[in-house]
Amino acid sequence: MLLSPEQLNEIKEQQAASAPTRRATVESLEEILYHALPVLDHGFIRVVDYMGDDAAVVQAARVSYGRGTKKKTEDQGLINYLMRHRHSTPFEMCEIKLHVKLPIFVARQWIRHRTANINEYSARYSILDKEFYIPSPDHLAAQSSNNRQGRADVLQGEYAQKVLDMLRQDAEQTYQNYEYLLNEDDQDPTRPGLARELARMNLPVNFYTQWYWKIDLHNFMHFLSLRADAHAQYEIRVYADVMLDILKRWVPHTYEAFTDYRMGGATLSGKALTVVRQLMNGQSVDRASSGMGQREWDELMVVLQKASV
Amino acid sequence: MLLSPEQLNEIKEQQAASAPTRRATVESLEEILYHALPVLDHGFIRVVDYMGDDAAVVQAARVSYGRGTKKKTEDQGLINYLMRHRHSTPFEMCEIKLHVKLPIFVARQWIRHRTANINEYSARYSILDKEFYIPSPDHLAAQSSNNRQGRADVLQGEYAQKVLDMLRQDAEQTYQNYEYLLNEDDQDPTRPGLARELARMNLPVNFYTQWYWKIDLHNFMHFLSLRADAHAQYEIRVYADVMLDILKRWVPHTYEAFTDYRMGGATLSGKALTVVRQLMNGQSVDRASSGMGQREWDELMVVLQKASV
Amino acid sequence: MLLSPEQLNEIKEQQAASAPTRRATVESLEEILYHALPVLDHGFIRVVDYMGDDAAVVQAARVSYGRGTKKKTEDQGLINYLMRHRHSTPFEMCEIKLHVKLPIFVARQWIRHRTANINEYSARYSILDKEFYIPSPDHLAAQSSNNRQGRADVLQGEYAQKVLDMLRQDAEQTYQNYEYLLNEDDQDPTRPGLARELARMNLPVNFYTQWYWKIDLHNFMHFLSLRADAHAQYEIRVYADVMLDILKRWVPHTYEAFTDYRMGGATLSGKALTVVRQLMNGQSVDRASSGMGQREWDELMVVLQKASV
Amino acid sequence: MLLSPEQLNEIKEQQAASAPTRRATVESLEEILYHALPVLDHGFIRVVDYMGDDAAVVQAARVSYGRGTKKKTEDQGLINYLMRHRHSTPFEMCEIKLHVKLPIFVARQWIRHRTANINEYSARYSILDKEFYIPSPDHLAAQSSNNRQGRADVLQGEYAQKVLDMLRQDAEQTYQNYEYLLNEDDQDPTRPGLARELARMNLPVNFYTQWYWKIDLHNFMHFLSLRADAHAQYEIRVYADVMLDILKRWVPHTYEAFTDYRMGGATLSGKALTVVRQLMNGQSVDRASSGMGQREWDELMVVLQKASV
Repeated sequence: MLLSPEQLNEIKEQQAASAPTRRATVESLEEILYHALPVLDHGFIRVVDYMGDDAAVVQAARVSYGRGTKKKTEDQGLINYLMRHRHSTPFEMCEIKLHVKLPIFVARQWIRHRTANINEYSARYSILDKEFYIPSPDHLAAQSSNNRQGRADVLQGEYAQKVLDMLRQDAEQTYQNYEYLLNEDDQDPTRPGLARELARMNLPVNFYTQWYWKIDLHNFMHFLSLRADAHAQYEIRVYADVMLDILKRWVPHTYEAFTDYRMGGATLSGKALTVVRQLMNGQSVDRASSGMGQREWDELMVVLQKASV
Repeated sequence: MLLSPEQLNEIKEQQAASAPTRRATVESLEEILYHALPVLDHGFIRVVDYMGDDAAVVQAARVSYGRGTKKKTEDQGLINYLMRHRHSTPFEMCEIKLHVKLPIFVARQWIRHRTANINEYSARYSILDKEFYIPSPDHLAAQSSNNRQGRADVLQGEYAQKVLDMLRQDAEQTYQNYEYLLNEDDQDPTRPGLARELARMNLPVNFYTQWYWKIDLHNFMHFLSLRADAHAQYEIRVYADVMLDILKRWVPHTYEAFTDYRMGGATLSGKALTVVRQLMNGQSVDRASSGMGQREWDELMVVLQKASV
Repeated sequence: MLLSPEQLNEIKEQQAASAPTRRATVESLEEILYHALPVLDHGFIRVVDYMGDDAAVVQAARVSYGRGTKKKTEDQGLINYLMRHRHSTPFEMCEIKLHVKLPIFVARQWIRHRTANINEYSARYSILDKEFYIPSPDHLAAQSSNNRQGRADVLQGEYAQKVLDMLRQDAEQTYQNYEYLLNEDDQDPTRPGLARELARMNLPVNFYTQWYWKIDLHNFMHFLSLRADAHAQYEIRVYADVMLDILKRWVPHTYEAFTDYRMGGATLSGKALTVVRQLMNGQSVDRASSGMGQREWDELMVVLQKASV
Repeated sequence: MLLSPEQLNEIKEQQAASAPTRRATVESLEEILYHALPVLDHGFIRVVDYMGDDAAVVQAARVSYGRGTKKKTEDQGLINYLMRHRHSTPFEMCEIKLHVKLPIFVARQWIRHRTANINEYSARYSILDKEFYIPSPDHLAAQSSNNRQGRADVLQGEYAQKVLDMLRQDAEQTYQNYEYLLNEDDQDPTRPGLARELARMNLPVNFYTQWYWKIDLHNFMHFLSLRADAHAQYEIRVYADVMLDILKRWVPHTYEAFTDYRMGGATLSGKALTVVRQLMNGQSVDRASSGMGQREWDELMVVLQKASV
């Protein structure tokens, strides 16, 4: 992560400023406000603003005139209930705003979640920095042979080095040409710079972009449940992991419920529930009689932590 | 507006509490935070929380590391530019949360704006208060004869009084029966109360409901441009008017741009622009040759403040 | 359900017209197109249009140039996979449009689902028919004493009759006054009709409204999973049940997956999964050691079809 | 555009198939259904499905039991009225589904419109074709010096050729390395292919991707009003232009209203309207007294087709 002294200064100024407010305030989140939390080799997440806290969820659920909170255990109980029964609207009453720096190919997955507000740095208008993502050697994984969107073992030795060199070299080369095309410094009128909106087309999707991203708590958790999941690509999962920490600082009761019901939970189909009931009753079951496909059956056995029958 | 001492106390407690924050803070909005601003005979709007300010719009537009603001005139200029060119995403980076009490028929218009978060008081679960809207005599308007969704003159004299009595009497009667159906106080086991979710069906749509409503600044202004408009029904327009005041306190630069470009502006069609150009050139124009319909023509003459040609 | 001869004729005309199309077409849905399927005492659902079929889900998932379908079992397998892993975007590629007549209090629950397009009959502009919902005697349920939004036993005997009479009488009375206020037929200029947008405020929420409602297949199923659920109010559940039949006609493979994974399935929390694993291993478990609340525990026992331990 | 014989065959099969339907059907749109309409050097737009027509807009606006249409002039008048007063919901009752092939940097602008359904070809899962966008010589424009997101004159001569060669060479080079990284054909177990989700990061944003995109008529027009605009980047504007033709085939009455009120119209601010009124009255005006900024003033003069005063 490469922040200029000027940028670091801007961040420091915001951290120093403080004003009294009557709004719901979360101390543990204030602590990291504006900090650039590092992700991957050049990326970061900065919490820029937030609205509401655990009590605001309770307040909205009760359509309360005041804070709406009662005893701590009652509040946690209500939040658990809302989470369990997927009553999402009270969680929508909290909001968070992040400044994120991320590779373009990660940004393209990220933006598939539509229920958020985004303001992205424009490469039509401005010039992209020379910052691109190169995997660390321990994440340079081979293609999985049985899962088309999965990874297998990490590449080894000279071959791995060659791959990394190749990625780095193409990024260097294309950026050098990007700069040639822009021709920002040259004053030769016979060689005008190519339009920025065209020149940027030469850059690979491992280059970094950045945006402001604002989302409500319900959709934030939905995003995390998909992107902190083991099926998500590693490069977006590390962003989700940082956001899980942010979630914990922001709304600890909601985080606890989220951890139990979403991240640690599982949805079982009608057929799977039948299998579970039979197993609990000591009956023997097999895939053939369950009506489930092989892949689905294997997934269930993983959830139940059973050796496949 | 009928707030119980308990509710007033809850509001007072929230107003009294103050904590330091590093977030963007707006003093003039903090002043009215949690206050119940009265609307109609029993309704109100309370600002419960907010995120961002004018500078946050600028900050997002510049994808800035700090506040992003420069000179005051530059900031206003940028906000004007964004408003004029309908660059809506920077305005989406601010958010406001209101607690609103409003008649059901107003709520039904209000909720047609989908890009907002809502948590409504549930009449399945709780009991509605005996509060219903009766128009003040000077808003008891007759049906317009030429505009099917418009109002004509105010009703007069004994007839007006009869109308008001009729509205009040039906509200009283149906609420009395609602209470009978609920049978909350009676312990007679042979007469169990009707399910709340059924009993409420007896209440007319002038009864008050309430909700928490959270919306971003862009959609807030879109809502206001439709509902503070002269075509909007009076009973929702008075809510919009209060929200215009809130907007002014919250983001004065944005408010100014909104007033000039949206509320005070007009969209002219290609045909209308042709008419305008002809008029500016001193040419004479008439509806027939303009290709416009009568109604559209009349609307244009109003915008241009010309007697119809 | 009270359709005028003119309306029945309009429907008949649409049913009679037929044109060739190259689009995906579903015969079993065409059969009921435009029919008014009755719900409650005066309501209905009419399928007015649809886009796509099961194959369109497969086609979108494969970003195919043609239909995208292969063998029938492969298609069902893919649809099951998408449903299981909550890959919702391919299901969003189908769309359905309904014309619905429903009581206002049902409409107010319905519209809480925001990801749909709605065009409602306007009582500002037009006059509402004299049609209101009165529960049938076998759905006139008492308030549940242990579940604040639930129903207990059905009211009996004379008392039940009194309740029904009361509901009917208030509806009759308020509609009669609505008509008086509108004063549509009277030409007496000293007694102008009250503005329609005001007069309608006298009508209770059991009066019927109607709308066009358009939604994609993914959100349609989300709506159904919430509203065909046992926790939903009976009066909206009967609409959901009719829509389940429509879903079955429209996309039978998707319907099957939906029935297994959503309607027949259950989401278990991390704590619940631990309990399940212990039970399968023949261990004894109790609520206290599970870390679950009483209500959550009871819900789990229902899912597992076990007597509470 | 490079469609394989297999793909062309799939398209041909869909074009050949025809079935009777009772739904609204648009002959002129059926004619081009499934055709790949070429855009840029390798892109295309294919209409894959549609729902509704001009009459469906009218039908929804009238919440009609039948088609809802009356005389042709009345229908056009109603559509004009809806467009003029921004009554968007009836237009949301029509839907269109496109299959689009487009450069990644265009896709990244396109997806900023959130109110649409998208299913994109996955480069995590599948391998991207060797197809990249190279501007034609007459669109190889220099950076504008006064508008940071604008274009100036087209590059000339040898220099232009060098730029094109550079773009082509980087695309060739990075794709060759992409193939090396994937190592699809090699069976050498000591050199496993890099995971697809990683290998794709080497490709520049001028490579083509493709997706299914579904949107309602209102949002379709909103997209077109922004992207067929002169301020839009040329490379997305050409897609918008093809979609304007599709719009015209699909809903000719709506297209006409859209052309007059949106594409050919302009929104004037309150200050601009004052200037217009003064000009019409023969008064002299200047920028200083108007309260407008220079840029805004210039934009107004363009709209009014006046030499700047």
